[in-house]
Amino acid sequence: MSTQAQANIGVVGLAVMGSNLARNLASREGNTVAVYNRSPGRTDTLMAEHGDAGFLAAKTIEEFAASLSRPRTAIIMVQAGKGTDAVIEALAEVFEEGDIIVDGGNANFHDTIRREAALRDRGLNFVGAGISGGEEGALKGPSIMPGGSKEAYRTLGPILASIAAVAEGEPCVTHIGTDGAGHFVKMIHNGIEYADMQLIAESYDLLRRVGGHGPEAIAAVFEEWNKGELESYLIEITAEVLRQRDAKTGGLLIDSIADQAGSKGTGVWTVQNAVGLGVPVGGIAEAVFARAVSSKPDQRAAVQRVVTSRPRIQEAGDGFEDDVHKALYASKIIAYAQGFDSVIAGAHAYGWDIDKGAVAKIWRGGCIIRAQFLNRIVDAYENNAALATLLEDPYFARAVAGGEAAWRRIVAKAALSGIPVPGFASALSYYDALASPRLPAALVQGQRDFFGAHTYQCVDQEGTFHTLWSGDRTEIKAEPSTH
Amino acid sequence: MSTQAQANIGVVGLAVMGSNLARNLASREGNTVAVYNRSPGRTDTLMAEHGDAGFLAAKTIEEFAASLSRPRTAIIMVQAGKGTDAVIEALAEVFEEGDIIVDGGNANFHDTIRREAALRDRGLNFVGAGISGGEEGALKGPSIMPGGSKEAYRTLGPILASIAAVAEGEPCVTHIGTDGAGHFVKMIHNGIEYADMQLIAESYDLLRRVGGHGPEAIAAVFEEWNKGELESYLIEITAEVLRQRDAKTGGLLIDSIADQAGSKGTGVWTVQNAVGLGVPVGGIAEAVFARAVSSKPDQRAAVQRVVTSRPRIQEAGDGFEDDVHKALYASKIIAYAQGFDSVIAGAHAYGWDIDKGAVAKIWRGGCIIRAQFLNRIVDAYENNAALATLLEDPYFARAVAGGEAAWRRIVAKAALSGIPVPGFASALSYYDALASPRLPAALVQGQRDFFGAHTYQCVDQEGTFHTLWSGDRTEIKAEPSTH
Repeated sequence: MSTQAQANIGVVGLAVMGSNLARNLASREGNTVAVYNRSPGRTDTLMAEHGDAGFLAAKTIEEFAASLSRPRTAIIMVQAGKGTDAVIEALAEVFEEGDIIVDGGNANFHDTIRREAALRDRGLNFVGAGISGGEEGALKGPSIMPGGSKEAYRTLGPILASIAAVAEGEPCVTHIGTDGAGHFVKMIHNGIEYADMQLIAESYDLLRRVGGHGPEAIAAVFEEWNKGELESYLIEITAEVLRQRDAKTGGLLIDSIADQAGSKGTGVWTVQNAVGLGVPVGGIAEAVFARAVSSKPDQRAAVQRVVTSRPRIQEAGDGFEDDVHKALYASKIIAYAQGFDSVIAGAHAYGWDIDKGAVAKIWRGGCIIRAQFLNRIVDAYENNAALATLLEDPYFARAVAGGEAAWRRIVAKAALSGIPVPGFASALSYYDALASPRLPAALVQGQRDFFGAHTYQCVDQEGTFHTLWSGDRTEIKAEPSTH
Repeated sequence: MSTQAQANIGVVGLAVMGSNLARNLASREGNTVAVYNRSPGRTDTLMAEHGDAGFLAAKTIEEFAASLSRPRTAIIMVQAGKGTDAVIEALAEVFEEGDIIVDGGNANFHDTIRREAALRDRGLNFVGAGISGGEEGALKGPSIMPGGSKEAYRTLGPILASIAAVAEGEPCVTHIGTDGAGHFVKMIHNGIEYADMQLIAESYDLLRRVGGHGPEAIAAVFEEWNKGELESYLIEITAEVLRQRDAKTGGLLIDSIADQAGSKGTGVWTVQNAVGLGVPVGGIAEAVFARAVSSKPDQRAAVQRVVTSRPRIQEAGDGFEDDVHKALYASKIIAYAQGFDSVIAGAHAYGWDIDKGAVAKIWRGGCIIRAQFLNRIVDAYENNAALATLLEDPYFARAVAGGEAAWRRIVAKAALSGIPVPGFASALSYYDALASPRLPAALVQGQRDFFGAHTYQCVDQEGTFHTLWSGDRTEIKAEPSTH
């Protein structure tokens, strides 16, 4: 190949995600795409199968750099982890001041903050960009969440816009914020995805075990739901999975799949981050825990050995499917409210100016949680960018109120029937806590003051107080506890 | 003072916890206690008020070191955080090979691991020791959870045993494991404490809002409960708090205290650690989240503005108090099972050999979660140290089964009445997940394979599979997913 600098964008790492992203880039007007992979086999495969896309295939990292016009812009698509640092370093050595290195993997945003600072010190732009949509999204149009500097986004933005999914006429990409903001928001996206999937799983379990329907009948229910306010990619593929047959057994695939759910890490990070920032994210945490419980075969077997009788499944009764639908929708609203609270808390903690409405907009297409529903969130933040919680928005307030009675019936019926509904129940308790004028947190404060002199504040009284519990039990004014 | 080395133990940091621990040490046969505080005021106060205890008060850190017999052994009692490193360094500079530095604060166990390694390289012993029991415990006998080397414990153990609480004739101290094991177990102790307090708070809320009882009547209920299987320090002080009057208002203190619960950090750490190790700890997480929700006045006010009608509180009905008792006991068993799972996972992850029965033993006295109940855990691990879960133990299996119907009624009634019960409900869903022969996690695996080619395993079939969802939907054998 020539070493003339004629490519406006490069891709490093040509496994399926990288290859698909490179093909997506090459298919868009105005892009010339340089490609490089450390071992040449993947490059050869891409050129053999899709060479007509006009890639500039580099054999060395130096050749790759030479093939890019300034500012050089390259997207790294390698598995997140330690390997990423080595690839970044290799690029940094051949790139020059003002060039742009993009990490399109699922990096932890703390790593992205560290990497951005280190490269900025060397005069290079580093952009952590969350990319959602899986292999198919990479090829046909993902949702893209780039962080990094505004300066880098001036060059990078139009290139990413050319390949992003389009929703309501707008490309699903926006500059989220500086340094790690993009990977942070991608992490929250994945956390919400965990919650969404868990709520769908609980709905399926109820329709099957209480409703008594088979998987194909339940698929039809989901197909019906996919025409209304629950319309979303995850509801759509749920129906597809439930209809799929298993050639091995002749039965339905859902009944062949082992019921132990795996996870990769972004759900865990979302919970660790939120709990550290004081954001209640029960919907996401219970989803992560539900997968963890499912993957403990020894504990499950041990409990099933000692549990000799199970409660009788309650009658589904009239309107059961509709009740499940409403419970699902209300719980989903809670999960998204908690997710956006996490975005807001992260923006505050890490110094990012994140436009919540813009985040909701770019999630409407390309990504796993894409849904009609996100338009309602866009509207909510357009009407009032300073919402204390999404639940305060009139549409969401009405939606929850409209489904509330059904939601309560479902949680009660599940509890009495022995069906686990950690997502539904956690969301309902969260809602009831917010809606309760008075919480037993006052007792917790009293206990903390009793055993640890942690002090308390009072209703309608200024100041901080401590009762001399081990003394004469009079109350004294106190400094707010710091220990 | 003389610089003769005549003290067998020293205390650095003489705020309330440190002073009380020093007084406790000095009151026991065989101990001579050196004391030192960076600013002399606290030392002077201790000597003025309790000088007859025979302390050797040092004015400088050098004098403090000189007053200790070899191997020098000193307990640091300063607020956990950055300050701890400075105090450790000051001691390390005046101590010599083989001497022992003990951190008795609430350090993060990761810091303790780091500090132990650094001091070991310098020939010094470093012991992170969790101490529970608050100010009163420090003075009269706490529960102590020391980590560090076995060599250090040979010297330190008898000193700690002399001041620890005594339960069933045994001192509440044991060598937990190397380096950070002590602070790790103290962290889990605090996480369980969060769960325990939340479950008591939910019980109180139900007795009040559904049962219709006033705080003093509820105090009487807790006093009654404190005579049975729920007998514990936290139940005891709950009754005390509920009976306490507020001189400011003439009413009950519980109705004066602001219902916003604070927290310090160990609950957060427990959740972050468990979720990272794949341990479901819904009981602890929901307790941490419940405190966080309570402390969001803006969100609570916003939701209460838009929520115009609340569900009608259900009739308590016959046996309601007994049902709450059973729900509390069953949920408590779940929380402890999850806590001990966290201990086991931490021991595995960080290479500690932790005796679970010994941990339960030293929690029976001195600490905040001390309870009769812990004898049942001691028995369980004595009968079978390899339990897959505490719920498998015959006593706990019977206890949960005996309370199960009541527990279900309470969760259902709370859901229908609009009373938040995140702890009860999460525990019940956890139990129902373990007891369910088949979980909807199979659907989650199907979805993950659909959108991310994450693969799945099958019931009764060896191997890992992937369906070509975007292709002809045949199934292929696959490598287990690593991305």
